[in-house]
Amino acid sequence: MESAIKTLVTTFLSSSKGKENLDSKSFQKLISSQFGSMMENAQDKEAVDKVMGDLDSNNDGEVDFTEFIILVGALTVACNDFFLEFNEKSETK
Amino acid sequence: MESAIKTLVTTFLSSSKGKENLDSKSFQKLISSQFGSMMENAQDKEAVDKVMGDLDSNNDGEVDFTEFIILVGALTVACNDFFLEFNEKSETK
Repeated sequence: MESAIKTLVTTFLSSSKGKENLDSKSFQKLISSQFGSMMENAQDKEAVDKVMGDLDSNNDGEVDFTEFIILVGALTVACNDFFLEFNEKSETK
Repeated sequence: MESAIKTLVTTFLSSSKGKENLDSKSFQKLISSQFGSMMENAQDKEAVDKVMGDLDSNNDGEVDFTEFIILVGALTVACNDFFLEFNEKSETK
C-alpha cells in the first residue's frame, strides 16, 4: 500500500514537473494518460476542464495536490463499489 | 496510477475478507502490516484505536472504505509535503 501512495505522489510531481500545482494543460495530460480506462471522458477536453473546475476549490485556475487527492479518493471509492457489485453478482449466479 | 488505486481497493478487501467494513482487529492488522514505515505508532494498539475512532465518522465501531480513504488521503498529502520539503532542502545545499 505504501508503494501505491508513493506512486500517487511521484506521478503527480512528474506531471507538475516538480511544481506544487497542475495547470490546465498538465492536468489534461495526467488525466488522459493515467485514467483513460477509469474515466469515461478522460480524452474529452471540455469534460476534463469541468472536472478541474470542480476540484479547484480555491479557484486559482490550477489543481494542487490536496485537490487532486479528492479526485483520486472519489475514483477509488467508485472502483471499490464496482468491485463489491461485481462480487455480489458473481455470488448470486 | 490506476494500478495504485486498484492496490488500495484490493488490499482493503483482503483485509476485510471481502466485507464492506474493517473491524478493530482487521484495522489494526492492516495498519501495522501496510503502514509500518509511514505511521510512527503503527504497532501501538492504543494509538491505532484512536486513529480508528477519528475515522469512524458514523460511529458504528468499524471503518468502511470511504472512511479508510480519508486516512490514505491524509497520509498521501503528508508524504507529498515530505517530498516537496526534501526537494527544497536538497536544492538549497
